[in-house]
Amino acid sequence: MVVRVDTTTICGTDLHILQGDVAAVTDGRILGHEAVGTVTAIGDAVRAFAVGDRVLVPAITQCGRGMPSHCQTVGGIGWIFGHLIDGTQAELVRVPYADTSLYAVPPEVTDEQAIFLADSLPTGYEVGVLAGRVRPGDTVAVVGAGAVGLAAILTTGLWGAAKVIAVDSDKFRLEKALEFGATDAFEAGPDTRADVLGLTDGLGVDVAIEAVGYPETLRTAASLVRPGGRIANIGVHGVPVELPMQEMWIRNLTLTMGLVDTVSIPTLLKMVASGRIPAEHMGTHRFTFGEMEEAYEVFANAAANSALKVVITP
Amino acid sequence: MVVRVDTTTICGTDLHILQGDVAAVTDGRILGHEAVGTVTAIGDAVRAFAVGDRVLVPAITQCGRGMPSHCQTVGGIGWIFGHLIDGTQAELVRVPYADTSLYAVPPEVTDEQAIFLADSLPTGYEVGVLAGRVRPGDTVAVVGAGAVGLAAILTTGLWGAAKVIAVDSDKFRLEKALEFGATDAFEAGPDTRADVLGLTDGLGVDVAIEAVGYPETLRTAASLVRPGGRIANIGVHGVPVELPMQEMWIRNLTLTMGLVDTVSIPTLLKMVASGRIPAEHMGTHRFTFGEMEEAYEVFANAAANSALKVVITP
Amino acid sequence: MVVRVDTTTICGTDLHILQGDVAAVTDGRILGHEAVGTVTAIGDAVRAFAVGDRVLVPAITQCGRGMPSHCQTVGGIGWIFGHLIDGTQAELVRVPYADTSLYAVPPEVTDEQAIFLADSLPTGYEVGVLAGRVRPGDTVAVVGAGAVGLAAILTTGLWGAAKVIAVDSDKFRLEKALEFGATDAFEAGPDTRADVLGLTDGLGVDVAIEAVGYPETLRTAASLVRPGGRIANIGVHGVPVELPMQEMWIRNLTLTMGLVDTVSIPTLLKMVASGRIPAEHMGTHRFTFGEMEEAYEVFANAAANSALKVVITP
Amino acid sequence: MVVRVDTTTICGTDLHILQGDVAAVTDGRILGHEAVGTVTAIGDAVRAFAVGDRVLVPAITQCGRGMPSHCQTVGGIGWIFGHLIDGTQAELVRVPYADTSLYAVPPEVTDEQAIFLADSLPTGYEVGVLAGRVRPGDTVAVVGAGAVGLAAILTTGLWGAAKVIAVDSDKFRLEKALEFGATDAFEAGPDTRADVLGLTDGLGVDVAIEAVGYPETLRTAASLVRPGGRIANIGVHGVPVELPMQEMWIRNLTLTMGLVDTVSIPTLLKMVASGRIPAEHMGTHRFTFGEMEEAYEVFANAAANSALKVVITP
Repeated sequence: MVVRVDTTTICGTDLHILQGDVAAVTDGRILGHEAVGTVTAIGDAVRAFAVGDRVLVPAITQCGRGMPSHCQTVGGIGWIFGHLIDGTQAELVRVPYADTSLYAVPPEVTDEQAIFLADSLPTGYEVGVLAGRVRPGDTVAVVGAGAVGLAAILTTGLWGAAKVIAVDSDKFRLEKALEFGATDAFEAGPDTRADVLGLTDGLGVDVAIEAVGYPETLRTAASLVRPGGRIANIGVHGVPVELPMQEMWIRNLTLTMGLVDTVSIPTLLKMVASGRIPAEHMGTHRFTFGEMEEAYEVFANAAANSALKVVITP
Repeated sequence: MVVRVDTTTICGTDLHILQGDVAAVTDGRILGHEAVGTVTAIGDAVRAFAVGDRVLVPAITQCGRGMPSHCQTVGGIGWIFGHLIDGTQAELVRVPYADTSLYAVPPEVTDEQAIFLADSLPTGYEVGVLAGRVRPGDTVAVVGAGAVGLAAILTTGLWGAAKVIAVDSDKFRLEKALEFGATDAFEAGPDTRADVLGLTDGLGVDVAIEAVGYPETLRTAASLVRPGGRIANIGVHGVPVELPMQEMWIRNLTLTMGLVDTVSIPTLLKMVASGRIPAEHMGTHRFTFGEMEEAYEVFANAAANSALKVVITP
Repeated sequence: MVVRVDTTTICGTDLHILQGDVAAVTDGRILGHEAVGTVTAIGDAVRAFAVGDRVLVPAITQCGRGMPSHCQTVGGIGWIFGHLIDGTQAELVRVPYADTSLYAVPPEVTDEQAIFLADSLPTGYEVGVLAGRVRPGDTVAVVGAGAVGLAAILTTGLWGAAKVIAVDSDKFRLEKALEFGATDAFEAGPDTRADVLGLTDGLGVDVAIEAVGYPETLRTAASLVRPGGRIANIGVHGVPVELPMQEMWIRNLTLTMGLVDTVSIPTLLKMVASGRIPAEHMGTHRFTFGEMEEAYEVFANAAANSALKVVITP
Repeated sequence: MVVRVDTTTICGTDLHILQGDVAAVTDGRILGHEAVGTVTAIGDAVRAFAVGDRVLVPAITQCGRGMPSHCQTVGGIGWIFGHLIDGTQAELVRVPYADTSLYAVPPEVTDEQAIFLADSLPTGYEVGVLAGRVRPGDTVAVVGAGAVGLAAILTTGLWGAAKVIAVDSDKFRLEKALEFGATDAFEAGPDTRADVLGLTDGLGVDVAIEAVGYPETLRTAASLVRPGGRIANIGVHGVPVELPMQEMWIRNLTLTMGLVDTVSIPTLLKMVASGRIPAEHMGTHRFTFGEMEEAYEVFANAAANSALKVVITP
């Protein structure tokens, strides 16, 4: 299938690629793994979509069998756009395994809402809220209120969280966290643990979601959960992490981590369509294809620019 | 433990008992299985509560082991107040297995909110929403919008339902259903199935909750679910029900039924305390102990009196 | 994909079709929905298999999305071979959606083992054992010890059942049930319930699996489960069933039913390969393609011929 | 309740206490948290047991509410015998919360079988097999084949594991592992990972259970699992552990850890009673109360003495 890209965006991973951190990306590769677009051509193998359909191209390519994030058929990793094949920051993108990978966008969902369902929202939801098994009545801490941490905050309500505590060092992000549904917000610092225990009978939260990717932030998240709690790591780590297993082993904890499967997109599309998830709040800046370099610059300095995600259109 | 009853209410089951439908209830039995009260005396076996504590006395007595609704230790049925022993429609009530059965009421939850957590709300939530496995993005139909059906509607949001469709023959109840969180409401009739399929791509709902207890209403609920759907029966049935198994067997359906365990009360207390469940909306009429007969009369003719639940205090 | 059929078999459904019970089957349709064979030709859309591969063609065609048994893309029902398109009782069969529907057969699994994984074994396992949520320590009753009931018995051990009680009116089948792993076997009759309660503290079994398809057998299964138990209906029903909901509603029961998805085939292949499931015991009679009519005759009178499943090869 | 101890044993934790590693244990404390015995006296609060009953006293005391291992009512930790109160290595032991903590031993289970259900077997099963979510068809690696690792091996079959790979540095233990149900056994060393990947399509196991408690052994376990796999830590750690999160984060892994709840004892008793779990194989040496010091000596040098667990009787 060939899809005309109507809206795309930039992911933190794209910045890592430009810094040379992702060895598999070869010179000349077109970046981008998020798009909303229109089908312009299909091959014989495509039966579920037709030319003219409005589709969401998610970060993960699914062969239709097994765990999408690590599909052996697709090459052991479901993330191939802007990584192993050309990506979505282009006018047109060739899409393999279209039938099992793409999602039709319902008319009541706008491009600017749908684009954040290609990666950020399902990542916060699947790797944070679902992996952390948030359940009705739970108290959840989210360490790191960037785009993905905010996506987690935005979707904790789908599983009935009673309290959602945001922790970040940036005031703009903490304000956004409260707008996105956090019930409490704390500036990260030496008192973080005391602040959170103070809200949770001294025992800690049911679920701590890590959305940064540093040893300290993961240890902070681990220190916030009560016995029996879950720590859901979303952050991308670059170095080993020392964990205080001598304190943790007895506490009946679960630590999860991983790449998104994007299988929650149908659920998220329904929640956006019904107005329960205001996905459009993720987009803070708008650019055209001609302003791509400026878009990258703003996103690379997100905090300084009070930026969450950028929206890029033709 | 002896508890001074500060607030109690009447349940549909109490009306059945007065009609002679519950053989195990002997003459002179004090009725009632719902109370909020204050501990006035405790025996040696009580360690988790003290005199003066404000407690919720739920419909089900728990021995601390196994499924509370059918606890073998307690006598094979967890509902004993106002059934096998004297109940809560009294100034004082003796409470066995207090440590494992009662719940402390947090200060931010009022008596008028807590009283509905003794039976109605956990029944709608556990036997409807939990047994029916409502999940984020689901469409749910609730057949019957009396107190228990409304309790189910009020709690579907804890599991992220996207659409909640109420079906009832009474207009007052359908209005209440919309107030309690239903997104759509239909008068029960020959078009019910067509109405619901019209809102669900012609396939039907994910979960249908039956909250009446007649053969026709259970068949209606069964007719509304899509392949793979769940039918959660809350209704108390008095006669056998003929089900169209020749159509149902192939549709990958699950039918659940049962008595509440009341184990969800801690979760519900948190959601009421955090303001996410306005439990107090269940109470439509208020009476004193001296007006008990009038309370019974109003509740026995609930529809005519636009009544949901009555609140009874000393 | 075109597959050369090396082994096929006959299903009870094929007999129903010959009696005119399945209206969707038109004149001249080639029957059969179970095969083990060899890939002889592939089209452009096939990437997961190559010519010469030894494959299992299961009863259900999967599009790679949603519940296979009722896949909307495939036409609302996953069973299409020998139903909506030509089937597997032929020298060659054309296979749509091959990539997401077929399974490679590992060398250590024989054709005579694999053929029963096309339908009978996954049906007993998925619609009986999995839907009934058999768990370690459980006592399971299986009402009806034909091919599918025996498949359930053969796979209860995968979930640690402690006791498996077979109930049937045929002595040959009860003997087979004990060979297949049942710990107890009872002739169906007026004492069935008393016999089963006698083995289960008077309370009944955790899971009752119905593998016949009559109102009486489903009511028998329902009468055998303890409070909190599950009734997994595998039987194909032709008429409505009256259930004693006036007794059942309070007992916290779950009744499941449905068509197989065949998604358990990878698990079953591993268990057959490791020697833990002796699938080959299902085949009692062998025929060649030239003896197809005789094969049908023997299978149509399975009880009289002490037959379970027939194996048919070129 | 007072229980006369008929059989007890020694746990690795008792050795730690003697070395001064457990600060909460004060001088003069009677050790031991495992017993099979006979009820000799009961107080008013006991309703579920009578004098003369044969009971299993498990390592964890349950108040009947919440997670037993960290019960807030009991003091925040469910392990109190031989820790916060006097334990079971004595002729008589006083048992608080008896109704919700003890288990009746069925006549077909011997004392020498039941004693291992007080701690070792539920620990291997709950913290290893259950927390690691072993499922039918799974391949499981168990790193460390001491008493608890062997308990995990012995119970993987309850959830249908297809392959169970034991890894240990001691040959006696590896032999035992094969006797206890492992399908493969490897001596721990630099080739461990290569050995295990060689048995699992180069991808690794579904579940790795760590039953030692050192940084290296936990890292070994983590290196053996495939994408999407689970690492269940049973080992008691004394120092922090550095984990290669830069490799692990993307692999969709789950790491669990914790103290046993002993809630699986009813299931394990049924499996022992039905002959499916030969618990008695855990006992390699027998002593009387008079030989307690010798018993400690043998157990403290378990490997040199080819010892797993010791059985101690009056």
